[in-house]
Formats: sequence, structure tokens, C-alpha cells
Amino acid sequence: MQCEKLFSTRAHQLKSSAIREILKVTANPDVISFAGGLPAPESFPVAQMKAAFDAVLSKEPQAALQYSTTDGYAPLREWVAKRMSSGGANIVPEQVIIVSGSQQALDLIAKVFIDTGDKVLVETPTYLGALQAFSMFQPNYVSIDSDENGLNADAITADVAKDAKFLYALPNFQNPTGRMMSEERRAKLVEKVREHDLLVVEDDPYGELWYESAPPASLLSRMPERVIHMGSFSKVLAPGLRLGYLIAPIEITQKFEQTKQATDLHTSTIAQRVVYEVVKDGFLEEHIPLIRERYKNQAHTMLDALSHHMPSGVKWNQPAGGMFLWLTLPEGLDSERILAQVIKQNVAYVPGTPFYANNPQHNTLRLAFVTVPAEKIQAGIKILGQAFAKL
Amino acid sequence: MQCEKLFSTRAHQLKSSAIREILKVTANPDVISFAGGLPAPESFPVAQMKAAFDAVLSKEPQAALQYSTTDGYAPLREWVAKRMSSGGANIVPEQVIIVSGSQQALDLIAKVFIDTGDKVLVETPTYLGALQAFSMFQPNYVSIDSDENGLNADAITADVAKDAKFLYALPNFQNPTGRMMSEERRAKLVEKVREHDLLVVEDDPYGELWYESAPPASLLSRMPERVIHMGSFSKVLAPGLRLGYLIAPIEITQKFEQTKQATDLHTSTIAQRVVYEVVKDGFLEEHIPLIRERYKNQAHTMLDALSHHMPSGVKWNQPAGGMFLWLTLPEGLDSERILAQVIKQNVAYVPGTPFYANNPQHNTLRLAFVTVPAEKIQAGIKILGQAFAKL
Repeated sequence: MQCEKLFSTRAHQLKSSAIREILKVTANPDVISFAGGLPAPESFPVAQMKAAFDAVLSKEPQAALQYSTTDGYAPLREWVAKRMSSGGANIVPEQVIIVSGSQQALDLIAKVFIDTGDKVLVETPTYLGALQAFSMFQPNYVSIDSDENGLNADAITADVAKDAKFLYALPNFQNPTGRMMSEERRAKLVEKVREHDLLVVEDDPYGELWYESAPPASLLSRMPERVIHMGSFSKVLAPGLRLGYLIAPIEITQKFEQTKQATDLHTSTIAQRVVYEVVKDGFLEEHIPLIRERYKNQAHTMLDALSHHMPSGVKWNQPAGGMFLWLTLPEGLDSERILAQVIKQNVAYVPGTPFYANNPQHNTLRLAFVTVPAEKIQAGIKILGQAFAKL
Repeated sequence: MQCEKLFSTRAHQLKSSAIREILKVTANPDVISFAGGLPAPESFPVAQMKAAFDAVLSKEPQAALQYSTTDGYAPLREWVAKRMSSGGANIVPEQVIIVSGSQQALDLIAKVFIDTGDKVLVETPTYLGALQAFSMFQPNYVSIDSDENGLNADAITADVAKDAKFLYALPNFQNPTGRMMSEERRAKLVEKVREHDLLVVEDDPYGELWYESAPPASLLSRMPERVIHMGSFSKVLAPGLRLGYLIAPIEITQKFEQTKQATDLHTSTIAQRVVYEVVKDGFLEEHIPLIRERYKNQAHTMLDALSHHMPSGVKWNQPAGGMFLWLTLPEGLDSERILAQVIKQNVAYVPGTPFYANNPQHNTLRLAFVTVPAEKIQAGIKILGQAFAKL
């Protein structure tokens, strides 16, 4: 039968991505890939995970394998609430809902807030996965100017803020740029958000992965009454479990719960219990510093390689944490076209265009550095430097 | 801040359910609850699960904890394709996508097919979770007449079928009624579906749970080119893992994949590998017969109790498999109002109304019997019989 005619408007608008097609070759082990967004698998606490699965399936196996509540495993919600209470935020467990990874958090946010055509404010550039989740509900994006110090709050004028459903922001080591929003910018943002009565979605999967010093206080801690905070266990434990959380004012959390019930009933019972088993006695306090150290070294290797091999005219930032950095080529160059060339030399990255909600800058690209061995970083960046120099 | 004004139309329409509020007391162990939809936890293969988690985390721990592809773990997709190939259906792995439980399958189907106001055909009554998932996308439901032998295909006239996005059907031991669509009705349905060029969603979580003999061939095996088949590991292994699958014509599966990427990136890597580890050598062939035997005995206990304790005028069906049966009270009685009374005597069920897309029959109710011990089934049904007799 002809199925296509039955598709919804949103399904019709889904296109298979040209970039994704190019990047399919990165599965080849000969390719030096700066394209992936994966955390370093060497950092997964395998022994602890194994012990936790065993403990959970020994203590209460039937409960761990049964259906459970939509809002999540109560001890884990309590743990999250306690851990995330700081500054002006006294988070209670009723504000927390456990989700099946941050991508589901984005889907739930879209469902609860976005009607077709609604205004949504995003950074420039912003996380591609958020654009994909939100776009299912056909919003009207307004891009907020951003730079090295993150989102520029001055760009949020009364006109820009008018009727916006929310502002989506990634203050810490943003995917794709690796940028961190400065203290000054955060303070200014709080001011503007209060002035224009905005709701803010703070997406924070990388905040714990700082290299030298912790980032400034979260937006959640500064104005808990107008922040939906997204957290994840993917970057501090392991992503394969698909586990994250949302923290919001209670009336919003209740809508998330009703919406999640219709979306996937609940998040894996056993995954929630296993993660609680792993974290409950302070394991993250010893584990996260190891990830920080590893990622800091990887970042330094990448930054060294860049300063050695990049021709003049190419610019990049110095990330203070996280897994990514952002490279800007001279105006007029197109990183997507260049990718098609360098991939023949077995080097890959993600072009910047898909990270823009509007008016993409074609001369930008994202480099991920945490899974590539040091000698391959050197070799790969050298090839990129030569390719850019030729153009 | 005032969050409510920011909610989407769909979020505004979400109401907390009065029935759910009443049923909250079923957490109390003194309550004899026929309300739950849970499989019997005694049937969970705990030892096999434990061994599988251990094996998966020993063999390839980093891969099992890492991000993975949206369409699912290739060996599991192959296993599903092979197992589901029968009759006229030669299923290839490219038609299969692994999902985070059947509820997510419903969400993906809704996303790919439903625009606001689109016509969707459903049985009378139908699965509540499907109504919840679809309603997020605001369809226009048309209820198709059903009886003891399942959905009545003659009710699908040209006018009814016109512009329908799909027909949602549960041919085997349907939740809520426990009904099975007869061979004759299936043959007729195939005829009507072809005649009116319809797409069918076949939801089949209970098909393996027959008591005496397997149900007639699936709709998938009869017309694979126009069926989206939903399967689940929740009722044959354990629901807490949240694992199911969708089988569809390839162009539809591709849309599911793109949509799932925006929805939750992928289903738990480790859960997929563990389930594959458990099922790959034929474990289900020895395990499912044990569940069948258990559920058959439970059903007989319930049917015995009903014939002993129900006053005349109360009718129910004889399920040939599954976890539920459907009770019809004399006209004029309201099962929701009666629930509020019997719950004071510590007995609970789910009233029939929420299972109707249109024109609920208030004198119906669902009884779940697989998790209640025999003596409690007797005691609970006796209390219900006395309550109904009084009215």
C-alpha cells in the first residue's frame, strides 16, 4: 500500500540528514572521528555496575523487574532532590521526575509546552537533539545571540520575550561549542528572565565535567521557580542505561508525569534501582574526578594539536570542561563541503550548520575529543590543518 | 511564576483521573485488587535474568553501557524478524525497530501518523494506554463495534474508513476485555481492510498467553504490507526492562527510527543485550508454557468464583488467554460509583468507562486475575457479588 499519504505533517518534514549519511563511514576503525558525541567508555564504572545489578537482582528481584510508577523510584528521586538543593533552591522529591535519558526530557518538555507555531528561544548555536525533539511539535524558533561567554542576555528584549513558551539554554560546556556561560552573563540572564517573566529550560549534562574549577552556580539555584532543570547520568556513569531527570516547579512536574505516562509508562525499573545502588553512598564523589582528569588531558592534547597544525584565520575556543570545542573557519568556507573531502583522508567532524535553528554559519564545526587516543588527535588535526590551509 | 498559561493545548487537556485517585488505595496490602494490569511476578525468570546481566557485563561491558543505534541491537532485531516470520509474512530485520516498551510504540505511531483532527479507528472498548498516547496528538476517534468475537469488520463501511489514518486493533485477549478475535472475524477484517485500503495497527502483548490452544494467525501474517505489529517482552519475560518492538513496512519503520531518535535516542543498550542473551537459545519455548499454565489456573479460579457469587443479570466472558475479563452489570448501574463503595470493603477493579473512545458503557468493568491468590479471588468476588446483588 501507499503509506506515505498517511504520514503526519511532522513525519513528512523529517528528512534523512546528508551529514548523517557522510558520517556513516565513521564506523570504520581507520577513520579518526572527532564527530561522535560519545563519552569515553574507559570511564564507565563496569565493576560497580556489575555489582549493583547483582545486588538489585538479589535483594528484590521481582520488584526490580516489575512495572513501577511513572514519576520514578522514590529513593532515587530523593537522592536527586538532595544533591541538587543548593543556593536558593531547596528541591523536594515531588519536583523530580526520572526520565529515560535527556532526550526524553526534551520530548516531554515539547509535549507539555509547544503548540504548532509557538515561540521558543534558543542559543546560537544550540544542541541538535533539542531542535529535533522540539521540531516534532513545530515551534517557531527565535535564536538568541551567543559568544565565548555564552548566551547574551541583552538580546532578550521585551519583543523577543513576548509570548515565548521558554528559553532553552545550556550554560555549562554546551554541546556543540563547549562554551560556558560566565557569572556575569548568568546574573544578567536572571535579571532579564525575571523582567520578562520567562520560563527557562536549563540543560546540564556536562556541568560536573569541569577541568580546573566548577562553573558558576546553576540557573536552577538562582531562580528555581522559573527553571526546568535537565540532568543526566549518561556522562557521569554510562549512557547505555538511558537515565536522566527533570526538576521543575511542582505543577510542571505533575504535567510531565501525566505526559510521561502516555509516552512510555515509566523508565526502566531495574536501571533506576541499579543507578541508585551505585550512587547512594557517594560513589560519584570519587568517580567524577577521574573523568574530569581524563577529559582535561584529552582537551589539552586537542588544543596543543590545534595550535601546532591550524593555519592562521582558523579560530577555536578553550573549553573549561566537557567534551567539545568549536572551530570557526575563515568566512566563505563551508565545513560541510570540506567534510566530504577530508573524510576521504579518514578524518571526520560534525559541520556546524545543523546546530543552528536559524541562519546557520557554514564556516563552523564541532570537534569531540574525549574518545580519540592522543596520537590520533595529533594525526587527525594535522590532516584537518593541511586541508584548511589549502582552501 | 504562573506556569499554567504556558502549557500546550494537549497539556491543558490532561486531567488527573478520578478513577486513578480512587485506586491509589490499592497499594494497601489489605485491598484485594482486581484493578492492576501487572503480570505475575512469580513468572519472572530471575535466575536467567541475573545470569544474562552477568554475561553481558562480562563479555562486552563497555559496549553494553555505551550509546547505541536508534533502530536497536542488530541480533535482537534479527531474532524478532525470524520469530515473527510466518504465514504470508517473511519479516526482514530492516522492518523491525526495538522500542522502550509498547507504550513508546504507541507514542511513535501517533507521532508518525496523527495530525490534529485526523480520523483513527478503534475497537469498542479499547486499550486505555493507546487512547492516552494517541490523544496527545488530538485525533478524532471513530469507535468500531465489537463483541465476544472481537471487532466487527462489517462496521467498517466505506464512510467509516474514509480518510482514516489507521485502525488500532488488539486481536488476542484484548486489554480490557480478554476477548479474542475469531478466525472468521479476522478473515472478514482482512477483506474489509483491503477493500478500503486501510492501514492496521495490531497490538499483541498477550498472544502467547493462550490457555488451551493458540489464537488464529496474526493480522501481520495475513497482510504484512498493511500492518504495523506491536510486540512486547513485558508479558513473556518482565515489564520492568521496558522492551518491545515494532514491525512495519520498511518505509514506515524508517519514519519510526527518525522519530524515535528525537524521542529518546535509543532503547537501553544493556536491556536489549540482556533480553537477547536470555531468548537467543530458545528459552521462551520452555518458559512461556509455565506462564500459560499459571494464568489458565488463575482464570479458572476467577470464573469459578464468578459463577458461584454473581447474581443473575451480571454477565462476563470466558477468556481463552491473557490476564483480564470483562464484566457487564445490568443496564443503569454505574461501575464507577459502585467502585467507590466496594473499595471501602477493600475490593477494587477498574470501571469500564475510560476504555471507551466514545459513548462509554457505564455498567462495565475490568477484572484482572493473574496476581491475586486463589483464596483472595474467592473472597473478593464474593464481596463484589453481594454488592451488585444489593443494587
